[in-house]
Amino acid sequence: MTGSTKAAEDVLKGLAGVRTWQQDCYVDLHSHPELSHQEFRTARIVADRLGVSGYQVHTGVGGSGVVGVLANGSGPTVLLRADMDALPVREVTGLPYASTVRSTDAEGHEVPVMHACGHDAHVAALLGAAQLFADGTEHWSGTLVTLFQPAEETSDGARGMVADGLADLLPKVDVALAQHVFPIPAGTVGVHSGPFMASADSMRITVHGRGAHGSMPQASVDPVVLAAMIVVRLQTIVSREVAPTESAVLTVGSIQSGSASNVIPDRAVLELNIRTYSDTTRTAILDAIQRIVRAECAASGSPAEPEFEMFGRFPLTDNDSDVTARVTEAFTGFFGDSCWQMPQGTGSEDFSEIPSALGVPYTYWGFGGADAAKFRAASDSGRVAQDIPVNHAPNFAPVIQPTLDVGTQALVVAAMVWLARSPQ
Amino acid sequence: MTGSTKAAEDVLKGLAGVRTWQQDCYVDLHSHPELSHQEFRTARIVADRLGVSGYQVHTGVGGSGVVGVLANGSGPTVLLRADMDALPVREVTGLPYASTVRSTDAEGHEVPVMHACGHDAHVAALLGAAQLFADGTEHWSGTLVTLFQPAEETSDGARGMVADGLADLLPKVDVALAQHVFPIPAGTVGVHSGPFMASADSMRITVHGRGAHGSMPQASVDPVVLAAMIVVRLQTIVSREVAPTESAVLTVGSIQSGSASNVIPDRAVLELNIRTYSDTTRTAILDAIQRIVRAECAASGSPAEPEFEMFGRFPLTDNDSDVTARVTEAFTGFFGDSCWQMPQGTGSEDFSEIPSALGVPYTYWGFGGADAAKFRAASDSGRVAQDIPVNHAPNFAPVIQPTLDVGTQALVVAAMVWLARSPQ
Amino acid sequence: MTGSTKAAEDVLKGLAGVRTWQQDCYVDLHSHPELSHQEFRTARIVADRLGVSGYQVHTGVGGSGVVGVLANGSGPTVLLRADMDALPVREVTGLPYASTVRSTDAEGHEVPVMHACGHDAHVAALLGAAQLFADGTEHWSGTLVTLFQPAEETSDGARGMVADGLADLLPKVDVALAQHVFPIPAGTVGVHSGPFMASADSMRITVHGRGAHGSMPQASVDPVVLAAMIVVRLQTIVSREVAPTESAVLTVGSIQSGSASNVIPDRAVLELNIRTYSDTTRTAILDAIQRIVRAECAASGSPAEPEFEMFGRFPLTDNDSDVTARVTEAFTGFFGDSCWQMPQGTGSEDFSEIPSALGVPYTYWGFGGADAAKFRAASDSGRVAQDIPVNHAPNFAPVIQPTLDVGTQALVVAAMVWLARSPQ
Amino acid sequence: MTGSTKAAEDVLKGLAGVRTWQQDCYVDLHSHPELSHQEFRTARIVADRLGVSGYQVHTGVGGSGVVGVLANGSGPTVLLRADMDALPVREVTGLPYASTVRSTDAEGHEVPVMHACGHDAHVAALLGAAQLFADGTEHWSGTLVTLFQPAEETSDGARGMVADGLADLLPKVDVALAQHVFPIPAGTVGVHSGPFMASADSMRITVHGRGAHGSMPQASVDPVVLAAMIVVRLQTIVSREVAPTESAVLTVGSIQSGSASNVIPDRAVLELNIRTYSDTTRTAILDAIQRIVRAECAASGSPAEPEFEMFGRFPLTDNDSDVTARVTEAFTGFFGDSCWQMPQGTGSEDFSEIPSALGVPYTYWGFGGADAAKFRAASDSGRVAQDIPVNHAPNFAPVIQPTLDVGTQALVVAAMVWLARSPQ
Repeated sequence: MTGSTKAAEDVLKGLAGVRTWQQDCYVDLHSHPELSHQEFRTARIVADRLGVSGYQVHTGVGGSGVVGVLANGSGPTVLLRADMDALPVREVTGLPYASTVRSTDAEGHEVPVMHACGHDAHVAALLGAAQLFADGTEHWSGTLVTLFQPAEETSDGARGMVADGLADLLPKVDVALAQHVFPIPAGTVGVHSGPFMASADSMRITVHGRGAHGSMPQASVDPVVLAAMIVVRLQTIVSREVAPTESAVLTVGSIQSGSASNVIPDRAVLELNIRTYSDTTRTAILDAIQRIVRAECAASGSPAEPEFEMFGRFPLTDNDSDVTARVTEAFTGFFGDSCWQMPQGTGSEDFSEIPSALGVPYTYWGFGGADAAKFRAASDSGRVAQDIPVNHAPNFAPVIQPTLDVGTQALVVAAMVWLARSPQ
Repeated sequence: MTGSTKAAEDVLKGLAGVRTWQQDCYVDLHSHPELSHQEFRTARIVADRLGVSGYQVHTGVGGSGVVGVLANGSGPTVLLRADMDALPVREVTGLPYASTVRSTDAEGHEVPVMHACGHDAHVAALLGAAQLFADGTEHWSGTLVTLFQPAEETSDGARGMVADGLADLLPKVDVALAQHVFPIPAGTVGVHSGPFMASADSMRITVHGRGAHGSMPQASVDPVVLAAMIVVRLQTIVSREVAPTESAVLTVGSIQSGSASNVIPDRAVLELNIRTYSDTTRTAILDAIQRIVRAECAASGSPAEPEFEMFGRFPLTDNDSDVTARVTEAFTGFFGDSCWQMPQGTGSEDFSEIPSALGVPYTYWGFGGADAAKFRAASDSGRVAQDIPVNHAPNFAPVIQPTLDVGTQALVVAAMVWLARSPQ
Repeated sequence: MTGSTKAAEDVLKGLAGVRTWQQDCYVDLHSHPELSHQEFRTARIVADRLGVSGYQVHTGVGGSGVVGVLANGSGPTVLLRADMDALPVREVTGLPYASTVRSTDAEGHEVPVMHACGHDAHVAALLGAAQLFADGTEHWSGTLVTLFQPAEETSDGARGMVADGLADLLPKVDVALAQHVFPIPAGTVGVHSGPFMASADSMRITVHGRGAHGSMPQASVDPVVLAAMIVVRLQTIVSREVAPTESAVLTVGSIQSGSASNVIPDRAVLELNIRTYSDTTRTAILDAIQRIVRAECAASGSPAEPEFEMFGRFPLTDNDSDVTARVTEAFTGFFGDSCWQMPQGTGSEDFSEIPSALGVPYTYWGFGGADAAKFRAASDSGRVAQDIPVNHAPNFAPVIQPTLDVGTQALVVAAMVWLARSPQ
Repeated sequence: MTGSTKAAEDVLKGLAGVRTWQQDCYVDLHSHPELSHQEFRTARIVADRLGVSGYQVHTGVGGSGVVGVLANGSGPTVLLRADMDALPVREVTGLPYASTVRSTDAEGHEVPVMHACGHDAHVAALLGAAQLFADGTEHWSGTLVTLFQPAEETSDGARGMVADGLADLLPKVDVALAQHVFPIPAGTVGVHSGPFMASADSMRITVHGRGAHGSMPQASVDPVVLAAMIVVRLQTIVSREVAPTESAVLTVGSIQSGSASNVIPDRAVLELNIRTYSDTTRTAILDAIQRIVRAECAASGSPAEPEFEMFGRFPLTDNDSDVTARVTEAFTGFFGDSCWQMPQGTGSEDFSEIPSALGVPYTYWGFGGADAAKFRAASDSGRVAQDIPVNHAPNFAPVIQPTLDVGTQALVVAAMVWLARSPQ
């Protein structure tokens, strides 16, 4: 693989010439975040840039998705993917380029919007890499596919592109690669073979009580008490039913019941998120939720069956061992000790929908966005959890560099494992 | 008291002439319900009618409150009170005159509105009684005050009239009387000496967690779990801390936390309603709530102190024993066995703010609105709780008669205890 | 009734002559407490004394029960009842005559024994009254039955005497009277018409889990968690299902599961006590317990149905209104303001089994055992609950006087309502 | 390592001659189980056998511990360890050689005793291996230490041998090896590098209430409710506070409060078992337990601080990566595919106290005891958890063969990694 790393280094010589533009692009994206399915400004910037760089560009794929294809002779086809959407979070980073954007969400409410998950860095890094590959065609051979996906946060963006005929737009792909910025030290990349990001299911549960005036509990079936008992009981799934050596998360992210202090309402709505790394555990947890909710309704004498609605499923991100081994070797060659084995994460990601639909192996890695000195200090004082903002937090703020450089380098180095001209 | 009953019967001879108009008025009010503090249409109807009947009329007392005064020679002054406001409830009675009204509530939301507590019957009964007293001045002597109060449901209407100078509008009052329609058999009146309706306090509790992505519970302090534990723990106040022979209610009418399945929120808000019949128990419960909420926050490692906000306090309705005895005797004389000793109720009422402010004794009684045959059938099958709709329920629908007749009769008979010309 | 009080006063002139012996008897009984069904020493003392006083004595009635009958001419027959058994409690009163007795209980365990419920005072008072009636036959006419009952604490002593043919031993009884020493000021008697002491049911619930090593919760159904959830859920019966104006108690007095920290056990056993004042509420609570326990077992995936075993039922003590009114009038005549209306209690009592079996009306009253000065101080500082030991507590210690005097006087005054010679 | 496997095979040629005796020994041990610290019969059998085999034997080490040393020329010293104690479990295997033994435990109670954890197989396997090494000295060089430890179940047997001067009895040891029979298919061995068995802590928690009669909850602080809330709340530590990717177990193995249905007790006792794989997690959990228990006591208004007593700590079993790699290579050479990577377990083990005290690296592996055909059938139907009895279960019953053969072979093959004569 020395060959591929050498070729990557050659391509990356252009980075100095791209950096200023890339940073400006990142700052612009960060201050103009767009909610899932609304990434049209971002898509236009992406499509314009790819066009300028000489890519064949497909827009409007699955809504606002953009695909750029650069054919450069014979050889493998590598797909690189970035996601583009932001979140309904009010930014409190205090950055000069912090977002003040407010948009109307899918339910018609005006909400603040923020790139709280770092997808702006993903876009900027992939645009930079796309430019470098276009500028350095003499160092590689094959076809590069750069894919910019909408609506990762709502888990339906990748599926949307697939459903919209993504496969028909592409030559036969050999491998798919993607990355995510994480609250790990900027300058590092983290790899993981096998199940890396969790499968995630969202579930809405409606339980029924019998409403009454707040002074007459005996005439009611109190859904607030019922919902509280369910939340309490659900804790026992992870604490007692899942094997301790198995990873799983069951979060009740939302509980809503009633609207006045003195009226016992007639229903409660819970929204759950379930994360697992195997189908067996996933099924066991979903079954246990049903069992517990139904039984708690029975304990309350609920007058109607509870309702269960699944929504927003993320697939498991299960990195191919061979692809991961090859990328790891290349990263180690390029980044040295800054490439490390990252532990399994509990986050979720819909990237794998794309390679699954295309029938190709994939790997997905992390790159650091946290100020390295701050991270070390936090680590030394055992305060990483408290001091380093995580994805989705309103103060999540990757340092611009070396975050963008490393994100760009990682894409080039990984793709070059397949694309580097063999005889160096 | 035979004298007073006789005089009441004389006044009530006019009822046949009032009934049709009174029923129309009730149906009109029922299909035009108005939220608390918005009872302006109702107030105008009331003021117009009182004016026609020859009362001196004060409008705009504490917002939309109306006071009518009819001076009829020397003698005691009796205050009769009715409340006028409706509730944000969507009516499902199926009545031909059911409300389809929607209004904008105090928080700017559009909500359905319904006379789900029967205040329309209170207004119609008092207007009818006012007319009868005006028509039958030869049978009584003294001064009659008819008071139509706004905003009973929000517990600040009586206080608002007092604060707006009610006392200055009135001659010296000797006794205050009020009534409420209840889901007891129409045709009956229920009296109770001593504490009858509960004191009620509303409390908003905000507890603080630490938000995080739904996949990272270990980075969070989960406010959904915290709020659920609080709801569960609060049950032990009534079950273990209040003496079994003491009546008390603690209802959590609302629980709200989070807005997405996969985000652990950073706070939860609970709204509680507490009903008691003594200051000792009230204080003990409020103290226990604080103790439990603070401790559960500590158990969760909550990062900030919980916040407690009291709102919407109803006073105790503690019927004067002498006034109640006199009214009971008159009712028994007039209604016979249809006057009964009603047990303590857990509902609340702000009427007592008015006699408290005026420094006069009072009694407050119930009159029936439930179809008597249906009630008997439900009672025989032990299904009163299930089959007879209660106040505030969306299917609460008093039968028009004998509800209005009895409501009117009760007001006349009770007031006549003080107003009847002594030598008949 | 002046007549009966006068006659009672005449009989009570003998009290001074009885007091020393009566106090010695009380101290002796207090330091020789006997567990339920083991009251043979007490019974012998009672029988000997009754014999000396000239009563016809029946022993061994329902085990250790004793009945003394004194026929004194024509007139009504009055039954006075005292209970004799003590409790498995280790006395910590520090009294010079405190019990140090240890006995073997019904399950073969050696336990400490104490008169923690004051039955020794009941026996001493009734023996004193029996003597006074025997000494003062000229002041009354009729038949006096003094009944000394075993095993009140286990709720089967009265039933045992009935089953053993009590009715056949007695002439036709007209009224039955009984009393209990309570933590109210010594010197006072408390009366109550209607439901006074609760009906009480004991229930043993066994729930089944699946045992496993403590490290393998996923292989288990954890009965400790299940039992805890049941205890928590049962609180909602009183807090939400019983009407606030209805009195009820549900106590889980015992929870037992497991014997080692690192082994998940396979079952848990709960013992409950349920107290109510009406059959409707009793049935509703028993149904709710079954509903909740079964549902919680379902929520846990329990491998076997829970088992419910009822034991130790106490009947309702529902004082006859006429009998109570007559006794109250006599008490008021004798004790003045020291006779008061005592509120409903939540304790239970099996006395009513006897009048129920005999088909006669009854009343049951309380007399004070607490030092009056201490009680007043505790009351003034709002610390009665903390400072005044209650029945069954290891520091329950009635003051000897005026407790015994008042207990004796109350029995004489009450019985004389029926027995006093009419023409005084 | 071909050399070591070849030498192991040579030594294992003697297995056929040992097998009958070894099986008899196993059956004898199984039907004569001895509780922790009482393994004197077992120790005598072990010591006799080692003596006959020519080992230098130390008995009474840390109670009933036995150490046999066989010096066989120059070379490394390998320590092989087996544990000897049984459990207070009533055997229900139905085996012809099932235990019917009852013994008096440390607290003076008579309890049934069973080899429910398979230590009998450990002893039999190590005795067999000891004999084979003694018979085949020509194939190896160095020193073999066979250590038979008491009281593994109570976690103090290894510590007891160390404290009793174990180090002084031994030559300098180079490596320590141990094994455990598990409910995996007989015929297989499972290896694991790094943290394999959990550290385990036992904790006794006493919480204080205020006792009262069961009818007077308002006079009590109910410790049954308090203990139940604690059990419920403790579930949130694993469900919400431990990172999903981190393994941890918190079991409440015992809850005890009260002894009668109608008496509210004054305390409750919980026994907890906590299993973790890192000091950070262990400390976090112990801190969280204290935080939660103290807060729940505050929520109840507990009159006294809770008490926490730690007992029975097991260390982490953290297999040395180098030693494990060498043993794994030898096992793979000998057992082929029947050697597999076993996942982290949640059980605990005190073996590591010995190598920790001696300052030597170690590995600890599992060998199968479950009937292979049954296991496969259970696995195919997804019913392993239900159908295959686990350690400590009353129906845990390893099949005699190939369990004993494989246990013996594993010891020989592993030890030979260090002891095989290098030039073959």
